[in-house]
Amino acid sequence: MNLPRIGILTISDRASQGIYEDKGGPAVEASLRAILATPFEALRRCVPDDRPMIEAALAALCDDGCCLVVTTGGTGPAPRDVTPEATETVCDRMLPGFGELMRMESLKQVPTAILSRQTAGLRGRSLIVNLPGKPSAIDLCLKAVFPAIPYCLDLIGAARLETNSAICRAFRPG
Amino acid sequence: MNLPRIGILTISDRASQGIYEDKGGPAVEASLRAILATPFEALRRCVPDDRPMIEAALAALCDDGCCLVVTTGGTGPAPRDVTPEATETVCDRMLPGFGELMRMESLKQVPTAILSRQTAGLRGRSLIVNLPGKPSAIDLCLKAVFPAIPYCLDLIGAARLETNSAICRAFRPG
Amino acid sequence: MNLPRIGILTISDRASQGIYEDKGGPAVEASLRAILATPFEALRRCVPDDRPMIEAALAALCDDGCCLVVTTGGTGPAPRDVTPEATETVCDRMLPGFGELMRMESLKQVPTAILSRQTAGLRGRSLIVNLPGKPSAIDLCLKAVFPAIPYCLDLIGAARLETNSAICRAFRPG
Repeated sequence: MNLPRIGILTISDRASQGIYEDKGGPAVEASLRAILATPFEALRRCVPDDRPMIEAALAALCDDGCCLVVTTGGTGPAPRDVTPEATETVCDRMLPGFGELMRMESLKQVPTAILSRQTAGLRGRSLIVNLPGKPSAIDLCLKAVFPAIPYCLDLIGAARLETNSAICRAFRPG
Repeated sequence: MNLPRIGILTISDRASQGIYEDKGGPAVEASLRAILATPFEALRRCVPDDRPMIEAALAALCDDGCCLVVTTGGTGPAPRDVTPEATETVCDRMLPGFGELMRMESLKQVPTAILSRQTAGLRGRSLIVNLPGKPSAIDLCLKAVFPAIPYCLDLIGAARLETNSAICRAFRPG
Repeated sequence: MNLPRIGILTISDRASQGIYEDKGGPAVEASLRAILATPFEALRRCVPDDRPMIEAALAALCDDGCCLVVTTGGTGPAPRDVTPEATETVCDRMLPGFGELMRMESLKQVPTAILSRQTAGLRGRSLIVNLPGKPSAIDLCLKAVFPAIPYCLDLIGAARLETNSAICRAFRPG
């Protein structure tokens, strides 16, 4: 039996060149492994903050059957940060509520949360969600939006995911 | 004297084919009749989840003089849900605060509120507002945003609407 | 030594024709002088609610080296209100969190806050932020988002600004 696939894309000039270790990708995978009761295959990739390369990596992960693709990095105001623009380009339809909720939750921690340009959208049967680059913020943002993700995947005809309800309670309307 | 016209557009493949009864349209009309003290003429339409057909129906309701056009259905992540895209196409200018507030209020009920892609916008002298498809969520969302609607219509030179203040208190800055 | 430059653009048909006094521009400057400990040069301009003229004025202020350009007026639903559209046209990348937070804070005062279409974005090394036209709302909105502005300017390589922490505490993550 094939496991559901989840793409994890680190977007960072320095991590992609090996100048420093990718900490965002492993942090996303650790959060997902804690949240999900369903076993899954993680497809981890790392690209620089280059719009065409991000778009190609996102499209490839969706085409490789990932029901969910999670990005980390490239969502701030720095000149090289273009992850939200690349996400919008490869998506058919956007889900503005993900970015709104992640900013609202992060705002309880730091006033600079409004600088985050994170978004989410759908490409065919895949959901793409931008997370921040900082490992400490990844878990907070992922847990804020994850309760809605399994039902979203049901609606787009993707894999059925179950969560560890002690960590995160997925909600499926009756 | 002509009554102000309000368009109510149900967007549903199955309701438009008569496979099941349209429950969203009547629920929107019932909410509007409870909220509004001003008598109005309701123009009810029903179209499938087809982007050109939604766009044509929205444009026709605005061109027929509706000061307000309320949609129900087609705002989720399912592959056929394209109401927000159709709305954006026919609008000159968008009002992102409507979707933000409806998601914020719905989030108090269900974590899947972030999957709603509802928006609102202006087409000439008409305000278009997307509501959810579920009758139970329609009233909640309409009451969340309605206090701002009469003043919005004043600003775009549309009909003057008065609300039943026991149900919903319209706000007009002094 | 050159002082950092901040652009203040009043967008109003009537103020630009001298039909009435520009009250928004001075209110923005007064708020900024109270918030900022760093001395700055204010470049004040006033244009009508005309999209090409707003776009030209915004671009000129950015090109003249303003690290921050603050607009006042033209963000509502009235037919001539096109400041957000002009802002989006001249920006490379948008910061949706600014508009979301300003609407959320204004919503605590008035339910018509959802009619505000304010946004913010980046044009090269300049941050452009839309504020409301009403002097009473300007200070509220500016203080809501200002804690994040100095760090945003750091990230885009613009001037370093310090705030009067009794009025507004800038946050720079450690």
